[in-house]
Amino acid sequence: MQNQKIVVIGGSAAGPKAAAKARRLNMSAEITLIQKSADLSMASCGYPYYVGGFFDDRNMLLATPTGVTRDPGFFKKAKDVIAYTRTEAIEIDRERKCVKCQHLDSGDIQWVDYDKLIVCTGATAKKPPIEGIDLDGVSTLVSIQDADYLRKIRDEKKIRRAVVVGGGLIGIETCEALHLADIEVTIVEMLPEILTFLSSDLSRLVANHLQSKKVHVIRENGVSAFLGLDGRLSGVKLQNGTELPCELAVVAIGVTPNVALAKKAGLKIGEAGGIVVDKYMQTSDADIYAAGDCVESLHMLTGKRVHAPFGDLANLQGRVAAENCVNGNHAEFKGTIQTGICQVFDYAAGATGMDEITARQAGHDVETIVNASPDKPGFMQGKLLVSKMVADKNSRKILGYQSIGPGDVSKQIATAAMAIMGGMTVDDIAVADLPYAPPFSLAIDHFIASAHIMQNKLDGHMKGVTAEYVKERVSCKDAPFLLDARGPDEYEQMRLGIGEVLIPLGALRQRLNELPDNKDAEIICFCKISLRGYEAALIIQHAGYTNVKVMEGGIMAWSYPREL
Amino acid sequence: MQNQKIVVIGGSAAGPKAAAKARRLNMSAEITLIQKSADLSMASCGYPYYVGGFFDDRNMLLATPTGVTRDPGFFKKAKDVIAYTRTEAIEIDRERKCVKCQHLDSGDIQWVDYDKLIVCTGATAKKPPIEGIDLDGVSTLVSIQDADYLRKIRDEKKIRRAVVVGGGLIGIETCEALHLADIEVTIVEMLPEILTFLSSDLSRLVANHLQSKKVHVIRENGVSAFLGLDGRLSGVKLQNGTELPCELAVVAIGVTPNVALAKKAGLKIGEAGGIVVDKYMQTSDADIYAAGDCVESLHMLTGKRVHAPFGDLANLQGRVAAENCVNGNHAEFKGTIQTGICQVFDYAAGATGMDEITARQAGHDVETIVNASPDKPGFMQGKLLVSKMVADKNSRKILGYQSIGPGDVSKQIATAAMAIMGGMTVDDIAVADLPYAPPFSLAIDHFIASAHIMQNKLDGHMKGVTAEYVKERVSCKDAPFLLDARGPDEYEQMRLGIGEVLIPLGALRQRLNELPDNKDAEIICFCKISLRGYEAALIIQHAGYTNVKVMEGGIMAWSYPREL
Repeated sequence: MQNQKIVVIGGSAAGPKAAAKARRLNMSAEITLIQKSADLSMASCGYPYYVGGFFDDRNMLLATPTGVTRDPGFFKKAKDVIAYTRTEAIEIDRERKCVKCQHLDSGDIQWVDYDKLIVCTGATAKKPPIEGIDLDGVSTLVSIQDADYLRKIRDEKKIRRAVVVGGGLIGIETCEALHLADIEVTIVEMLPEILTFLSSDLSRLVANHLQSKKVHVIRENGVSAFLGLDGRLSGVKLQNGTELPCELAVVAIGVTPNVALAKKAGLKIGEAGGIVVDKYMQTSDADIYAAGDCVESLHMLTGKRVHAPFGDLANLQGRVAAENCVNGNHAEFKGTIQTGICQVFDYAAGATGMDEITARQAGHDVETIVNASPDKPGFMQGKLLVSKMVADKNSRKILGYQSIGPGDVSKQIATAAMAIMGGMTVDDIAVADLPYAPPFSLAIDHFIASAHIMQNKLDGHMKGVTAEYVKERVSCKDAPFLLDARGPDEYEQMRLGIGEVLIPLGALRQRLNELPDNKDAEIICFCKISLRGYEAALIIQHAGYTNVKVMEGGIMAWSYPREL
Repeated sequence: MQNQKIVVIGGSAAGPKAAAKARRLNMSAEITLIQKSADLSMASCGYPYYVGGFFDDRNMLLATPTGVTRDPGFFKKAKDVIAYTRTEAIEIDRERKCVKCQHLDSGDIQWVDYDKLIVCTGATAKKPPIEGIDLDGVSTLVSIQDADYLRKIRDEKKIRRAVVVGGGLIGIETCEALHLADIEVTIVEMLPEILTFLSSDLSRLVANHLQSKKVHVIRENGVSAFLGLDGRLSGVKLQNGTELPCELAVVAIGVTPNVALAKKAGLKIGEAGGIVVDKYMQTSDADIYAAGDCVESLHMLTGKRVHAPFGDLANLQGRVAAENCVNGNHAEFKGTIQTGICQVFDYAAGATGMDEITARQAGHDVETIVNASPDKPGFMQGKLLVSKMVADKNSRKILGYQSIGPGDVSKQIATAAMAIMGGMTVDDIAVADLPYAPPFSLAIDHFIASAHIMQNKLDGHMKGVTAEYVKERVSCKDAPFLLDARGPDEYEQMRLGIGEVLIPLGALRQRLNELPDNKDAEIICFCKISLRGYEAALIIQHAGYTNVKVMEGGIMAWSYPREL
């Protein structure tokens, strides 16, 4: 083991992490890193922020915090790792345990022997096979070349209009970056909603926020062709025939794991399209490990294998692969719960665990709640969060959590992710001892409040319905009686205008006569965030009404147009 | 149960929460809230921020988010709760199940019957029984009267110098508030360090930060007398004889649970001085519950009962007490892990779980690590966090976590608190799926990186020592060989100057001849944050040295004076 030969294919995230960790664990090993691109250890998740002008020094994407570029010289001197750049691994000979490489500049072929091999070949941006995809002006934002191309566009200030194809994480980040470059952006998403890691109600709120920033959001429509003029992009044609004139299009419809090399070597490829690895990151060949965007990961909650191309997981997997290569299988990558987050201008949107659909598919008896409330007290300039919690009705365990808004989404999602990984129940969270002081949270943290609402619902104290349900019901013939429990001043400033009756909570006990005569009539209560709406519902129920509901999240979770 | 009589004594945090929750669970109950003070439901944790001018509208401390003052009228109209203010509960008659109250303005006595009673009598600021404690100018910051008094001082701009007695959470918050009022502040702490929920090394870094803001921090010294002139404070005399001239002194040496009423009624009082309750918040009398600052709570990790006077726990306990009063014992308050946080100017300081001393006392075989690294990438203006993790060597479970610095302490502590409550191991955390995008965290989150360092230590890859250890060792005759593994530019800008030798990591393999000849010599490596220091140690060990250590956290965790 002391003079082990370790070869790592791939030099973006998982690869360099694996190589560096292997070195720290075995100071005598001969470690070789093979990288197709010219650069190493690129902070690729930082590309949108470089394009958007959050920083101007491109080297920050490629350098250590002290400014040393992570080039082959750095890898040699600091890590004692031989790094070949512009070198492609073109074949793995599992019998002879060596990798055939081609140095791209010279064309030379080299065979590199390994005792253990770590495959970190990453993923490639999907490109739809449609007309005009190769026009000048059609790009992706995956490689550093893409980042350079788009940053140049920012700096040149010539381009006015862009279309971002795909409303996922990268699409939204790209959209913000281009918007900050003073480009008018349209997002085109094939699915009914953008950011599909969110439930549709939260997703619509994010789309509204984008639109408030003058980003056009087109949903349920795909691109049928990129239109060109003299080889340059002049517009995008949508599947419904609409043409959007633009000089730039960025395709961000996801990535495909790079598995050609592994497949050719006979390594097992899974249904999600990635290299199959076990919890030790070991492939179907005991001497070959794999990590990063090229592998499939276990979804810890569904038990299924999924493709989870996240930069953080790539690093964690690379570290685990190296530990097991050097010291034998012992370190475990336990899987993903599909935690993700993205910045959306002055909002953030994040999710962890399962959404309600996935949870139902996984066989859970699911309950959900929506909680709209601030992250901090008003006197400390608390900002709104709209969150959704998904729980199992029987075990009362938290299964998933989503959060959006200008508030501290990142803390919410990190806290929830830990609660999910720790197998905590809603009742554990309801009395959790989280850090509280007014600069950081409410006395009852937003996450704990979400658990309280869930308890109220699971225990039958509250019948909650979504804004989506209310929207559907108000257009029916037998529309429900809608009660807004806020004060008149609040009503004058902001209101839904969907036929609701205003009865302030404090006056409700005296004004019960204004409710429908029929005690079985459907009554839906709300307020700004539906705390008072909940109390109103309890009062009305107590007055003998049998079908009283609360619109969860209140007006703050209403993603449809409102009167005022 | 339908016409249950519920009486709540105390109207600050736990009491109003219990009354409101009881109402929601039982719409027919007769609910009475008895409050000694004139105000109800005060956001007392907000007082320092009102005094410090974070906001000017005092009513924000007493009002709902929509601006309605939470007075008896509000409680009647919105909650159908009878609230008596300026009314003191002076006796509990457990036989007859009633509470004797005195209306303080009229002097009238009233007996209020209960089926279930919830005692939320809170806590009172400790005042040392020393000369001058009653002088005009000596205050606390616990009541709204205190807040009014100190806010007036801010607004009048007459007072120049203040002494804050006590360097705990409230002391530090008060210090910041007074400093923002342009008052020169000295903190006097009896113990060797301020903020005792932190380890001494982290605590010293916070003290350094306070001193950088021109706050004077005096440790290991108590107040022996408040000095006066014509009944007004003129200075503070310390136990070592020093006199500090000042016009204001705020005493913040902790609080004592208010248990006189409960004690008189024969309820069981615990060793920590609070009312004894079980997990249902039930006292030794089955019809009496208690919640908030007057009770003792179970420490979930040590199994001991502790006094944990935190506003968030008061609310959670009040809610649990109400649930069990109305629907019988079912809801559980599982205890505290002593999570706390406070803002320290542009730093924050937080802790959760056990520190190393408590953990050892609880019988754990303890390992600790220090991690100094940013919360986000440099290109997203990441800010430093210095964190300490405490874990059990055998179970490898995380027992405690502390974090300080300008970085996102609040998220770190919330994440760690969940991990501790979820019983997670260091190995679970090392591969945790947390939300990652550059605006929110590093690819390997600071908390996960802490777990990685802990793994390295537990697995014997790294021998880490604290700055405190190094500080002690350098003044010994057989001082260790100290190696700074940074670059020359960095060394020119900042250095310890304690006899260290600069050998940049990248040059180390070629310069091993500069190390001591004796292979058993103690060598301690570090860099800015000791990542490169760790790699240097591995190289040196590999060269045959047997006693190589890493100074954890590097220069960023060095709390002593440095040369540059």
